[in-house]
This record gives sequence, C-alpha cells and structure tokens, in this order.
Amino acid sequence: MSRLETSRGYRAWLPAGRRTDERVIEAWRPLLSRLSARFDLRPEGPGATALRELTGGLAALAGIEPALTIKAGAPAIALGSPEAAQAALAQMDAQALAPEGFRLRFGTANSRKASPAEAESSGGADAAAEPYAVLLGGSDVGLLHAVFAFLRLFQLSEAGPPAELDRTEAPRSALRMIDQWDNMDGSVERGYSGGSIFYRNGRVLSDSPRIADYARLLASVGLNAICVNNVNVHREETKLIAADRLPDVARLAQIFGGFGIRLFLSVNYAAPIELGGLHTADPLDEDVKAWWRRTAEEIYAAIPDFGGFVVKADSENRPGPFSYGRDHADGANLLADALAPFGGLVLWRCFVYDCHQDWRDRSTDRARAAYDHFRPLDGRFRANVVLQIKNGPMDFQTREPVSPLFGAMPRTNQMMEFQIAQEYTGQQRDVCFLVPQWKQALDFDTRLAGPGSTVSRIAAGEVHRFAYSGVVAVSNIGDDDNWTGHHLAQANLYGFGRLAWNPEASAEEIAAEWSALTFGTGSAAATFVRRLLLQSWPVYESYTAPLAVGWMVQPHYHYAVDVDGYEYSKWGTYHFADRNGVGVDRTLATGTGYTGQYAPENRDRYESLADCPDELLLFFHHVPYTHRLQSGKTVIQHIYDSRFEGAAAVEAWIEEWRGLENEVDAERFAHISDRLQGQAENARQWRDVVNTYFYRKSGIADEQGRLIYD
Amino acid sequence: MSRLETSRGYRAWLPAGRRTDERVIEAWRPLLSRLSARFDLRPEGPGATALRELTGGLAALAGIEPALTIKAGAPAIALGSPEAAQAALAQMDAQALAPEGFRLRFGTANSRKASPAEAESSGGADAAAEPYAVLLGGSDVGLLHAVFAFLRLFQLSEAGPPAELDRTEAPRSALRMIDQWDNMDGSVERGYSGGSIFYRNGRVLSDSPRIADYARLLASVGLNAICVNNVNVHREETKLIAADRLPDVARLAQIFGGFGIRLFLSVNYAAPIELGGLHTADPLDEDVKAWWRRTAEEIYAAIPDFGGFVVKADSENRPGPFSYGRDHADGANLLADALAPFGGLVLWRCFVYDCHQDWRDRSTDRARAAYDHFRPLDGRFRANVVLQIKNGPMDFQTREPVSPLFGAMPRTNQMMEFQIAQEYTGQQRDVCFLVPQWKQALDFDTRLAGPGSTVSRIAAGEVHRFAYSGVVAVSNIGDDDNWTGHHLAQANLYGFGRLAWNPEASAEEIAAEWSALTFGTGSAAATFVRRLLLQSWPVYESYTAPLAVGWMVQPHYHYAVDVDGYEYSKWGTYHFADRNGVGVDRTLATGTGYTGQYAPENRDRYESLADCPDELLLFFHHVPYTHRLQSGKTVIQHIYDSRFEGAAAVEAWIEEWRGLENEVDAERFAHISDRLQGQAENARQWRDVVNTYFYRKSGIADEQGRLIYD
Repeated sequence: MSRLETSRGYRAWLPAGRRTDERVIEAWRPLLSRLSARFDLRPEGPGATALRELTGGLAALAGIEPALTIKAGAPAIALGSPEAAQAALAQMDAQALAPEGFRLRFGTANSRKASPAEAESSGGADAAAEPYAVLLGGSDVGLLHAVFAFLRLFQLSEAGPPAELDRTEAPRSALRMIDQWDNMDGSVERGYSGGSIFYRNGRVLSDSPRIADYARLLASVGLNAICVNNVNVHREETKLIAADRLPDVARLAQIFGGFGIRLFLSVNYAAPIELGGLHTADPLDEDVKAWWRRTAEEIYAAIPDFGGFVVKADSENRPGPFSYGRDHADGANLLADALAPFGGLVLWRCFVYDCHQDWRDRSTDRARAAYDHFRPLDGRFRANVVLQIKNGPMDFQTREPVSPLFGAMPRTNQMMEFQIAQEYTGQQRDVCFLVPQWKQALDFDTRLAGPGSTVSRIAAGEVHRFAYSGVVAVSNIGDDDNWTGHHLAQANLYGFGRLAWNPEASAEEIAAEWSALTFGTGSAAATFVRRLLLQSWPVYESYTAPLAVGWMVQPHYHYAVDVDGYEYSKWGTYHFADRNGVGVDRTLATGTGYTGQYAPENRDRYESLADCPDELLLFFHHVPYTHRLQSGKTVIQHIYDSRFEGAAAVEAWIEEWRGLENEVDAERFAHISDRLQGQAENARQWRDVVNTYFYRKSGIADEQGRLIYD
Repeated sequence: MSRLETSRGYRAWLPAGRRTDERVIEAWRPLLSRLSARFDLRPEGPGATALRELTGGLAALAGIEPALTIKAGAPAIALGSPEAAQAALAQMDAQALAPEGFRLRFGTANSRKASPAEAESSGGADAAAEPYAVLLGGSDVGLLHAVFAFLRLFQLSEAGPPAELDRTEAPRSALRMIDQWDNMDGSVERGYSGGSIFYRNGRVLSDSPRIADYARLLASVGLNAICVNNVNVHREETKLIAADRLPDVARLAQIFGGFGIRLFLSVNYAAPIELGGLHTADPLDEDVKAWWRRTAEEIYAAIPDFGGFVVKADSENRPGPFSYGRDHADGANLLADALAPFGGLVLWRCFVYDCHQDWRDRSTDRARAAYDHFRPLDGRFRANVVLQIKNGPMDFQTREPVSPLFGAMPRTNQMMEFQIAQEYTGQQRDVCFLVPQWKQALDFDTRLAGPGSTVSRIAAGEVHRFAYSGVVAVSNIGDDDNWTGHHLAQANLYGFGRLAWNPEASAEEIAAEWSALTFGTGSAAATFVRRLLLQSWPVYESYTAPLAVGWMVQPHYHYAVDVDGYEYSKWGTYHFADRNGVGVDRTLATGTGYTGQYAPENRDRYESLADCPDELLLFFHHVPYTHRLQSGKTVIQHIYDSRFEGAAAVEAWIEEWRGLENEVDAERFAHISDRLQGQAENARQWRDVVNTYFYRKSGIADEQGRLIYD
C-alpha cells in the first residue's frame, strides 16, 4: 500500500479498516455472505462503481468476500437470503424512485432448511431466521447512493442488521455541487490543505488516483456535480476549454461520471478575446455568440455529459458584460444559448459589489450590492441559467444574515453557495464545524412567498417553479494526506454533502455520524469529537469578531485578528467603532436601508433595535457600548465575557482531548493535539486584542477586572 | 547601444550626454585637449579605471578626445598646459595625502608662445593665458576619486574652468559601505527596484555589465566597500563561501576592486553545520574554529583583498552563539580570529531584540534591546570586529532618536548603519530624500565623551580610538532601468556616498549637486527637484505616523497605512493609542527607562516633557491628545493639521511638475508624474485614515472642521 493509503486520514469517513467489534461482524455475516447484483455492466459506469464500493467496503470492514452473482438489468442489489430478497424486490417499484434516489429494505425470512454450517456462522441462536437486504436504485447512480447508505448502516451498527427496515430516499435538491478553487500552477485559492489534487505546473493530473478517491468521497455523501477550476479564471485556466486541453478535461469528467458526478468548468468571460482572438467579448456581438456556440459544440463532442459553466463576471476585477454596457442577464444568456442545445447550465455568480469603494463614503453599503444588481433582472434570464448566491450578503463571515436576494427572484433559477473552506472561520487550523451555520441558513424563513418560504425549500425548487436549483459549496480539500489539513475539518465536507442531500438532517445527527464513522462507533473519541464539533462554531464566534461585525481579520490572509485591518479599505468592510459605539446602521430609518431588501416580517425584525437578534446586532445597528442586549448584558460586557469564554472553551477541549490519548491512534491524537494548541494560542490573541481594542476605545472597565494587560 | 544604455535613468548622475551649453564646452576645451597620466598600468586596476572614466566622461560631456600621454608611476593626471601642470605637480606632495584622498589644482599659466590654432580654440580673448589642472592621488584609488571630482566640477560648471583652485580631499571615515540585501533566487529583500543585478535562479551573474556599471556609480560618490548578499543568509547563499562558488565571488571582487571597492560577504552563523557537516556551530568548539580558519584560508586564496564577513546572528530567528550559551563577543571573535591573519574584518550587526514579544507585557521595550545586549560586552571584542549599529533604536522608521549604543562602547569599533532602501519611507514610490535624516543623525551630539561627541566624529574614529569605523547603508538598487524604481530615489544613493565621504556637506548642497548633475546644470527642472527633495522627508513624515510613533504601516509590506497593524504584534512595535492619549512612555520616572541609556544631557532632555523635541515626543512620552506641543498646538490638532498639510504639499508638487513638461525629457517627465500621482493617492489615504482613527478615538473635532468623512 502507498503512504497515502496507510494514512488514517486519507480514507476519511469511508471504510478504512476492520471493525474492532467482532461480535457485530458475526451478527452481520449471514446477511453479507451472499450478494447478487444487476446494473448496466459498463466497467466505468456507476453501477460497477456501486458493486465495487460495496464489496470493497465489506472486505475492509469485515474481511467478508461474498459469493457474487452479477447480471445486466435494472439497478438492484440483493444480500442474504436470495429467495427472500427476490421476493422483496418483486414488490418494489423502481419507477417510483427518483433517478438518484433509492429504496433500502431489510427483512428476515424463515429459512426452510438451514445447513449446519449456516447455523453455526449465524451464531446458532436463531438458525431458522435468514436475514436479507435489498437495495433498489432509481438508476445506477441511485444504486450507488444506496450502497453508501448501506455501508454506513453497517459501519454505524452496534449489533446485527435491522430486522425490519424500509427506507426510501431521494435528494432534496437537483444540484448538489462542489466548487474547486484550484489553479493550474498547483495552488488552491483559499486552500488550507496543501496544493491541488487536480493540477501541477500547468498540467492536469488526470491520471492521479487521488481524483477517483475524491470522487468517491463526494459520491458517498450524495453530491452530484463539481466545478474543477477556480472561479477566478487566470490565463492558463482560460485554456481549459480549448481543443487541445479537452481530452484532459474529458478524462476528469469520465472519472467523476463513474460516481454519478457531472463536471463543470469555470470560464473566463473574456475568453473570446484571450482564446478566440476576437476584439470583443460583447454578449450581443454575433462573432462572440458564434465563438461560444462553436466552443460548446467542441466541449460536448469531447464530454457528452458536461455540466456547464460557472461564471464570476464583473466581480472583483474579473471581466464581464459591463465592459460593453450590457448587464448580467445579457452576459449569462449568451453562454446559456450556446449550452442549451446540449442541456448545459450556466451557473452565474451574484458575488458582485464595488471593490474599489471609498471608505469615507458611508452611503454605499456592500451588503446591498447583490440584491441591487440582480433583483431588477428577474425574468430576464434563460431557463438554463442558475444564479449562484452566497449564503450571506457579504462574504462567508462567521456570522451573517441570509442574503435577501435568495428567493427574491421568483422567475429566476437560484442556488445557494456556502464555503466549506474555512477562509474566515479558522482556515482548518481552528476547529469550526459549519453545519449548524448552514443549517440556520437553510432553515431561515424568507417569508418571500408567505410563511414557510425557507431557504431549503427555495433551493429545492419547492417555493418557486425553478427548473434547476440547489446548493453548492467551495471545497476545503487539497493534497494533504488527510485531504483537509485539520482532520476534523473533514466533518464539514461530509456535513455539506449530507445536508445537500437532506436539509432536514440535524447538525447533531450529522456530527454524530461523522464522528462515529471516523473515530469508531461507540468510541469515547467519537463521543467527545461530536460534542466538540457542535460547540465549535459558537466557540469560534465567541473569541473572534463580536455580534456579526465581521472582518476583524488580517487583510488578505483572513486568519488572525486585525481589528482595523479592513476598516479603512476599499472593500466595503467596516465596523465603524469609535469611542462611543460600534456597528453598521443598515436600517431604513437612519442607515443604508439594507433591511428594506427583506420581506416585511424579517425587515421589521431587523429594523427594530429591540427585536433584532443579539447575534446579528452589529450587522444591522450602530449602538453605544452601553446598549443592553436581549441577554441583559451590555454590548461591551458581552464582548469581554464571550472572548474570555471562547478562549477558555478551547483550553477545556485540550484538557479533555489529553484524556483520550489511549483511545485514538497516535497519529491522529498528536495531530489534533497540535491543532488545538494552535487554536488556543489564536484564541488568546483574539481575546486580548479584541478586548484591549474595545477597552481602549470605550474606556469601560471589565466588570470582572480581567483586563490585566492594559 | 543597448536598451539600458539609452535609458536616461541608467547613467544616473554620471555623464550621460553632451552638455547643452556649447559656450561652457568651448571655455573648457583648452584645458581638456591635452592629458598626461601616470599610474599603475594594470588594465583592471583603479588607475586604468580613472583614466577610462575621465576620457569617457569628457567624450560624453563635450565630445573631446584629448591627446594622451600615459606612463607608469605615482598616480597623477595633468591637463592643459603641460609645462605649467608639471611645475604645479612638482610642488605637490603625494605622501601628504590619505591613500584614498586626492589633491586637485587648477591654475593659469602665461603662455610663452601661443600658436594661432590655440589662440582660436580658446576664444582668442586671452590667448596668452594657458589653463592647467592637476589631479594627484594618494593612491590610484585616490586618483579615481579625483577624476570623479573633476568631472563633477566640469558637469556643474556654468562657465570656464576655475582660474585658481587648490583642494585637498580625504574621506572622513575609513569604511564607507553598501549592503546589498540580494538573494540568489534573484529577489531583493526590501527591494523596490526590480530584481537583483547580482543573481538569478541561484547563479551569480558575474559577467553582467551592470555590475561594473554599479561599481562605477558607487565609486563616483566615494564608497569603498560592498557586501553582496543579504544579511539574512538563506540556504543557497550560505554556499557562497564554499570552494566551488568562490571563483564567482572572486570575479565580483575583481570588478569592484577595479573601482577601489572591497567586497564582503554575509555569512550564516550555522555554516559549520549547514556547509561543513559539523554537529555544532559553537564558537568555543575547536572543530568549529578550525572550520572557519580553513574557510578563511580558502577565501583569501581566491580573493586576496577580500573585506570580511557581515553577520546577523541571534536576530529575527537567525542562528547565532546564543544556541550554545555563548554571547555576541564569543560569536564575533570566532570569525575575527579566522580572518585576522588576512586583515579581514567582522561586521557584527547589533539589530538584536525579542521578536516574539508579548504585547501585553509593557515592561519589555524593544528600543532598549541593542544597548542592553551589547553595552556590557565593551572591551570583549577583537580588534578586527566592528559593531554595525542601526541609526535608531527601532528599525529605520521615518523618525527615530539616534541609537544610544552608538559611542557608548569606547573600547569597541563601531559603524553606523542607514537604510537607503525606503522600506518604511515610501518604498521608492513616494519621494523621500533621506540625506537630511542621516545628516541629523550624523550631527547628533551624543555627549558620551563630552560636548562635540557627534555621531560623525565617532564614526570617523575621532572620539574613541577605533581601529576601524565608518558608515554603511542598505542599498536601494535593483535591475530596473533606472536602478532605483523612482528616478528621484537615485538622490539617496548619491547622497549617502557623498555624506559618507564628507559628513560636513549639507543636505542642501547634496540635493543641488544631484539635481544639477541629473537634470542639467542651471535647468528649471534641477531647481524644482532640489526644492522638492529638501521638502520630501518632512512632507512624508507629515502625512504618515505622527510625532515619531512609527509603525503605522501594513504588516510585512511596510508601505501603506495601517494604524493598528503592528499594535498587537509580537514585534515590540506599539503606540498605545487609547481614547485619552497616545505614545510610549520610555522615561526613567514612569516608563521603560530607555531614556537612561543616553548621556545625562540627552537623557534629561528626552525625559522632560517640556524639553523633549516635538518631533520625537510620542517616541518618549505617552501624552493626552490635549497636550500642548512646544509649537503651541495640541497633539490632536497637530495631527490633523500636518496630515492635511502633507497631502496638500504633494498636490502642489504635481502642479509645479506639470509646468515643467517642456523642460524635461518625455520619459522622465511621465515617470515622475506617475509616481507623484501615486504618492498623492497614498498621502490622501494616510491623511484620512490617521485623522479618522484619532478622531474616533479622541472624539475631539478638528478646529477647522475638515473631517467631513466621519
């Protein structure tokens, strides 16, 4: 085995080694010893992948190599008693399933005649009861998802297989996507886990086994789309859509296709100029249209199941339709028309704002920008355009309200963008489990089409009649052995996929699942890690920027504290702290009017100083340090207290983790110990800088007299 | 001619093209038409260089190719009337001159018999008077300096040669040195003028013509030593003292030697380990001593006139003797003993401080560090060690007091280090002529051996009996066409050399000289540039960090404003601004006691709030914003006013420069226009950020109501 394969982190949450509890293996053995499967027999197809994953998983977890029967046909796998399984299958209707969905049934049949060997292998206690399980896919891809669900059940089981179970699953949203911000020089923008697994020195690593292993990770949690290059498309990456590069891209598409994942590319809006030699990229120019049409033809000739384009245009100095006096609808429709004949999509990002703002001008509010730019264009976009909207109005801060643009364009497809990469949330050096944050966004009721217009329902196309919609997130992986830098950051990748598949899952369930899969079902480490994960976002928030002001980070790096680092910048990122108070007045009454972008119920809540949730207070209001929160504390005392609490919480984790030294493999024990020590140091620095800063500004002493360093 | 040679910036202040005023050329022609020279005839020796520079300069400036007589002998050059020149020479005593010094004599002899041709060429007015000039060197190097002085006289002349002149010059300090912070990958640490002219991709560019051209620039202003690699010696540069690299270094030494400049290398204190394969670099270890002895032997075998080592040890994470429980004297003496047999020097840097300071601990004061580390070691260093001390106690800030260590170790050789590279003073994007700053430091009376113990006298070895001493500065050049990024930044390189040679020269003289040499004697551009240069340091100071607090720059970059960027860092760089006041209390009475490192007269002056010079106030005292300066203004109003004045001054320069469009070549006009525009933008940002910052902290309004943006 290679170094990577023996690294405990490399296998992540997938079956990595034999289950330690032999009793459980024995209880499952009768079910797992016989297997018959049918699917499309293409060796690189998702059906073959499903079978390979299942047999590989069983071998890894239990050392079982079941007797196999394979044939072509509608996708299904039967385990255990063949007769009972076939009987169960006969009652199940594949047509009723969503294409990516599956039905999973466990049962027990009375054995007509148990052989002595079988009686012994099943423990002898219930020799007459023969277990079976049936996995039925809405397609071969559905079958693959069924396999991962089945393996998870086995991996998480603390006894034998369930006697009875009948579960049908289907993904809630059509698009469940990952964006790689990888560059062809091998770097990853906002990557905190080493270099790119896709590129090095301008070359596509299309023959690297890591790519298939990554596809496996993504498929195992239900994801179905990936964009393999940075949204900031530089010179070299612009050429990915050129004819001589397409074979490489096609190979990537084939690998991901085998796992039911469609491949997208980020494109440079100026490609007709940079690549095509035209003098313009004007979306209304006929030569430009023809160039994109030809380009689409070439791409689909090489990659028949190509997903489409991701586009960052007229954003942070990227080219776009504005240069030609056109708007975003003109811009997106150009590409949409080129892709439409092939069923391709345009995922058009709404992260558009003035990145050369004069900080002296308080009337401009970056938070308003996406809504102001896009809302008026509702109805102007083609049916195969999807607007990709960041979860908050700013940029993946630790705490933001939900973007008011989401759901506000009933006639325009939308998908929500999250960031798994912890750019502003600890950069995979500090633990910050983001599932609770995403959950809160998904559960947010926009009220835009009456009560119950939650983000997750909008993303699922259940509120407006979207042809395409879903969720997408910026990846957090790189070529580190454990993929994600911090081992515990794997939980975010896992959690995003699980939530994309089923936004009703709770953060608690997801944390418990990942911890058990990764550290062993029922282990003390899993129990502790689950708790740590669930505490981690509130803890991270409590020692960093308070009450949703955000941006108190070192410019460019975005990790360590710098209280005024973005205060006098061109980026529209301010907190306006002075000797009297802090926060941004975004009210209609006296501020930038941003609150007016929400539906009335939400608008009124945010507008009111009394009703605005504490955790979002400084995002919406500028208040004196002596303002009293709903919690009863003054703002300044809240700042002091929570910074101390946050830093103390990290210290407590270290203490607890130390007690688990004998419960975890040495590699992961040491790795997590190191990272926690680094986090504690970071938390102390944040605590003391933020507190000192506000103390020096306000002159108000800590009630508990803890500010000894000033 | 190559692109470089035709670039107006490349020739810098040296003769670049024919003088525009033909009347002046004609007035000088009789003197310049005949030339006889004697010197050591080695073709790469400084005597040959002197003749080459003189004939090349005359050809460039006047198109004159004098009739030549050359022979071997004591260094001298005679021009004009041969008889009169010989007669004058016979009266001059070369033995009385310092080796690098020279005597320059102009006179006029009555011609016994003027030929008709001569009468015509001298204008016919005074045909009987034959001019002559004699250049006598204390050595061939002295002759070279005489040649540059002579050429300068011609270049600056607005009429004919002086009828009578007798000037003897000698450099004031023995060591007049330049430190290159160049790395072998081709980068320059704190370089703002492109890449290195010495290295690229790990290779020494020893055959690059730029290196000789740089040597010419340095020699032309009287410098005599250069260290050619970064004081932070990385892995690749560590190998420069290895046998296989020495031929490259020897070639560099030969080039500089031809201009009277000795070559030094920065060495890595851990070289015995990294290069020698030893297990230690302990200065008291016999193997280590033997290794350095052998290394010195090898170096001197390759480079007989090698200058010695520059060492940054136990400073900013560089290795040093501390690792072995030894002190700086042990460390330096190790190298000194190895070099002593060959006459080599150790230049040991005193830039030593705690770079992992806890900002919460106010008792530690970085300003104290050099004195606290080195003062107790006085008398312990070998005779061929020179301590290299930065001009201020911090790090080349816009305004600092003079380092109290300078002159405080009567039994230890010292040299002062300046920085020509504008790391904290505008990075060659903003104009900042530093000669007035250096002048102020050189003129500072330390009082350490009674009144008149000025820095320049100490550096010259006139106060303490130093065997070696002088001044050194970090270079500001790179491979940009014009060497220094900003064309006007050439004035700093020029000025450093002139001041090193003669610290009595005034900033006004130096600015006038450089401006005239560069933009044409008597030109309108030269007049304006001279004034701009002299205003530029005060102007830069007035829009940046106020009253010597320093450090309000973006961490790492050190260019743009970041008011709190270094406030909570590990670097010992704080201003302690709060809602009541600002500044660092370094008094003995209530502060860190730093003032106690000065001689009593200076100590008392800095200690007293009433007597402390305004411009250094916040370096020594923490005062309320309402404190009244000696100028009569409050601190806060001074901050506001001077930020506005500084930014306005840059705007005024732009206006004036615009009026000179027809007076300057198009290339330099556009270049300087662009840089000034950038400086104006930078100044506005500084003005508004600093003012807003202090307004938000203090709550005190500007008396003139100009803070419209907050």
